[in-house]
Amino acid sequence: MLLSELATRIGCRLEIGRGGTGRGAAQAGAVRIERVAGLEDARPGDVTFLANRKYARHVASTRASAVIADASLVSAPCPILRSAHPYVAFADAVRLLNPPPAAVAGVHPLASVDPSATISDAASIAAFVSIGAGARVGARSILHPHVVVGAGAVIGDDCVIHAHASIREGVVLGNRVILQDAAVVGSDGFGFAKRSDGSHQKIPQVGGVVIEDDVEIGAHSAVDRPAVGETRIAAGTKIDNLVQIAHGVQIGQRVLLAAQVGIAGSTVIDDDAVFAGQSGAVGHVHVGKGVIVTAKSGVTHDLKPGQMVSGFPAFDLTEWKKASVEFRRLGRPRPRAVPKARPKGRRRGKR
Amino acid sequence: MLLSELATRIGCRLEIGRGGTGRGAAQAGAVRIERVAGLEDARPGDVTFLANRKYARHVASTRASAVIADASLVSAPCPILRSAHPYVAFADAVRLLNPPPAAVAGVHPLASVDPSATISDAASIAAFVSIGAGARVGARSILHPHVVVGAGAVIGDDCVIHAHASIREGVVLGNRVILQDAAVVGSDGFGFAKRSDGSHQKIPQVGGVVIEDDVEIGAHSAVDRPAVGETRIAAGTKIDNLVQIAHGVQIGQRVLLAAQVGIAGSTVIDDDAVFAGQSGAVGHVHVGKGVIVTAKSGVTHDLKPGQMVSGFPAFDLTEWKKASVEFRRLGRPRPRAVPKARPKGRRRGKR
Amino acid sequence: MLLSELATRIGCRLEIGRGGTGRGAAQAGAVRIERVAGLEDARPGDVTFLANRKYARHVASTRASAVIADASLVSAPCPILRSAHPYVAFADAVRLLNPPPAAVAGVHPLASVDPSATISDAASIAAFVSIGAGARVGARSILHPHVVVGAGAVIGDDCVIHAHASIREGVVLGNRVILQDAAVVGSDGFGFAKRSDGSHQKIPQVGGVVIEDDVEIGAHSAVDRPAVGETRIAAGTKIDNLVQIAHGVQIGQRVLLAAQVGIAGSTVIDDDAVFAGQSGAVGHVHVGKGVIVTAKSGVTHDLKPGQMVSGFPAFDLTEWKKASVEFRRLGRPRPRAVPKARPKGRRRGKR
Repeated sequence: MLLSELATRIGCRLEIGRGGTGRGAAQAGAVRIERVAGLEDARPGDVTFLANRKYARHVASTRASAVIADASLVSAPCPILRSAHPYVAFADAVRLLNPPPAAVAGVHPLASVDPSATISDAASIAAFVSIGAGARVGARSILHPHVVVGAGAVIGDDCVIHAHASIREGVVLGNRVILQDAAVVGSDGFGFAKRSDGSHQKIPQVGGVVIEDDVEIGAHSAVDRPAVGETRIAAGTKIDNLVQIAHGVQIGQRVLLAAQVGIAGSTVIDDDAVFAGQSGAVGHVHVGKGVIVTAKSGVTHDLKPGQMVSGFPAFDLTEWKKASVEFRRLGRPRPRAVPKARPKGRRRGKR
Repeated sequence: MLLSELATRIGCRLEIGRGGTGRGAAQAGAVRIERVAGLEDARPGDVTFLANRKYARHVASTRASAVIADASLVSAPCPILRSAHPYVAFADAVRLLNPPPAAVAGVHPLASVDPSATISDAASIAAFVSIGAGARVGARSILHPHVVVGAGAVIGDDCVIHAHASIREGVVLGNRVILQDAAVVGSDGFGFAKRSDGSHQKIPQVGGVVIEDDVEIGAHSAVDRPAVGETRIAAGTKIDNLVQIAHGVQIGQRVLLAAQVGIAGSTVIDDDAVFAGQSGAVGHVHVGKGVIVTAKSGVTHDLKPGQMVSGFPAFDLTEWKKASVEFRRLGRPRPRAVPKARPKGRRRGKR
Repeated sequence: MLLSELATRIGCRLEIGRGGTGRGAAQAGAVRIERVAGLEDARPGDVTFLANRKYARHVASTRASAVIADASLVSAPCPILRSAHPYVAFADAVRLLNPPPAAVAGVHPLASVDPSATISDAASIAAFVSIGAGARVGARSILHPHVVVGAGAVIGDDCVIHAHASIREGVVLGNRVILQDAAVVGSDGFGFAKRSDGSHQKIPQVGGVVIEDDVEIGAHSAVDRPAVGETRIAAGTKIDNLVQIAHGVQIGQRVLLAAQVGIAGSTVIDDDAVFAGQSGAVGHVHVGKGVIVTAKSGVTHDLKPGQMVSGFPAFDLTEWKKASVEFRRLGRPRPRAVPKARPKGRRRGKR
């Protein structure tokens, strides 16, 4: 793809960088772009990008044929693809230059599909996929090898379900849902009633799970079903690997849950919240819209919209940062208080 | 099922609530119950429950046809199913109103069963199940699609093994064991001997793993096998999702391990202990009977029976709570101490 | 195997222990050894080992026929197999006495192998394995049931891939790589660009993943692929269960990552570093050679070679230990300062 065409299709303005002396934008735009690459790895024929300030120092030495950047980049040794949202433009460029391989529609002869299941003719069902009674799979959805779809489960259109994912009985996935390898949706919630002898009686987990449109769930993440009611993940939410979503949790739209996050039972998370890696929330709390929970933190009570919290139990991020600095000081030798009336002529080091 | 029958079968006394004016218990008991539902979701025809004080305020507005509760609930707009153990009664009600679908006994034609394996005629073996040489599967056990049973492994009676679970060679499961999707039992422990050149030599992990009766293991949890001896999980213990049980760990009866807990190698946990979410224990420690470890905490030394601990390194819960309050204060501006006899006319800022 | 032969093959010197009065080394060496066992479990016919000081008190009562130990063990009730590296000798003994079952070379009739894939005649491909177009599997590599190999992926020689592992498209594994059950290599990195409306646009993750020789990856661990560039795990590194390696991470040689560790995107970890259980590192940081990160800690900035850190944010281990002691004190009643001139006759409790 020519650089000029790429610029147009990802919505960028093509500018001549520091290295451009005589060449015009038209000439620069005639370069053929093969690949997107990082600043340091890029070779001629690659387009690169600057989306994280931390890497700005690498721009001067990049060998890329063009760099996607916002107005903060003053000069570059190659043409600049100027964008107000360089990371989105980068994402577009990766997609344009790496079209997914076409999936072959149809059911592989080594798949096991219950006769009562409804599979779109445009769906792609790989080897060793198992689809239960009454399940439905929508148009253009791709089920990679070893996906298991339980009885009565519904998969919408244009979904991509990677190998070894489990979609348990009755689970509903919307459209354009992506499950990474071995994601589990609809496993039994951890619900037990303690008997008077101290033993635990299993509460059958027979509630539903709904995953709305455009949700992505990472490898080895689990979304549990509840005993009653439902577990729901609203549209556009993205969940990383090894995340635990317990029974009855309600997650809003466009929420981001990084790897190894755990959300305990019946907790409600409103739209646009962000949980960083290895953080979590206890059960039965309400996390307001746009809340940010930093890495390794644990939410133990309701949070108002927009709060940024850290620590365990989690509290205000700014206060936590100060407290953490003080905590660290606890481990250092205490500076001695300066005496009010220090005898003249005596120096500390001399005692 | 009639409410009166339900009451009898779950061991509750049927009482007329606040809304009962002229209707007698007999009349109330004639209502047909279809479903168990939460207080807010329940409709006429549903039975609901109050097991967590936090939700008591929702009782007055519930539309349910009956509510399961203990003596602390004074009145309700519907009949009350009175129980000393409302959560157990609720569990019973869910089970009665949601009988599991009958599994078809027999081996699916797309399963792969070694001729030397012994499968009960009453077991149910789904498509793409793989059973190795010399393995045994007991009566009425259900192996969902894609379960892998290694050579010589033993599965007792009435087990439910969900899709993609791995039961490695030689592992022994008792009766009524439940494995959620993709649980792994018998993976190699993380055992390496450091050579003098700094490289790591694998210690073959050839010990055994025993999972006793009535244990449940969650999705994506792993129970490792040791090099020598065995890893054992005793009867009635329940393990949530994404839990790590390292090689040689010994877990007692009725222990609860919440999601994302990690127990390092050779640690011993006695009966009735509870580990909350994302907590853990280092290797080679002994956790006494009934110990409670709160969320995100980490046990680093032996604990006596009944201790409640928190933090990392974990210590007494009450002290930890106080320390956490003080920690939080470290991040706030210090209140100025009132000076006892401050020299007149002299102000701090002026020095 | 005779004890004398075992001693020779694991490079130990056979010594007569405390119990040896009249018997010579030759006589002791004639004992037949069947098994390796722990100090407490060992029976006559077993060899046991002392590699952890903590268990030294069990030596005196062991029933083993021999004990592997270094010079710190003075006496034993059985012959001693003396070694400068007893843990390595133990590992050798376990391997010698537990040779792995021979895998049958060939492709199981229930496997699904794309005609364009290249499978060594000496490889062993089990039932329900799925191998994509253009993939390659080297000599003597064993793929257990339900392994999925994506298009174009490469598996070297002498690898062992346990059940349910996913090796995604284009991933490259070296020689002698071991993947435990359900390990995932090459899942999509968690990469999204935020659009101006707050929604998240997926950045296609089309970069590569390389796992070098002698790497082991635990059950349920995930190694993500990046959008550009590659994720790489260098030779001899060992990764435990439930570990998250995000997109673009570079891990050096002989690194140890214990269970439930999480390494965020683009972070670089140099050779010989160790991360203990449930610890992690944020993205875009550089962890120097030989750094040790203790359990549950979180690295938030670059670390120099050889640093030992703890806590979150992680700092110097020694300081952290002191700070943790002080933190704990915060939760205790403050000891009252002893007044310099306490009035006579007045007792504390009497006020």
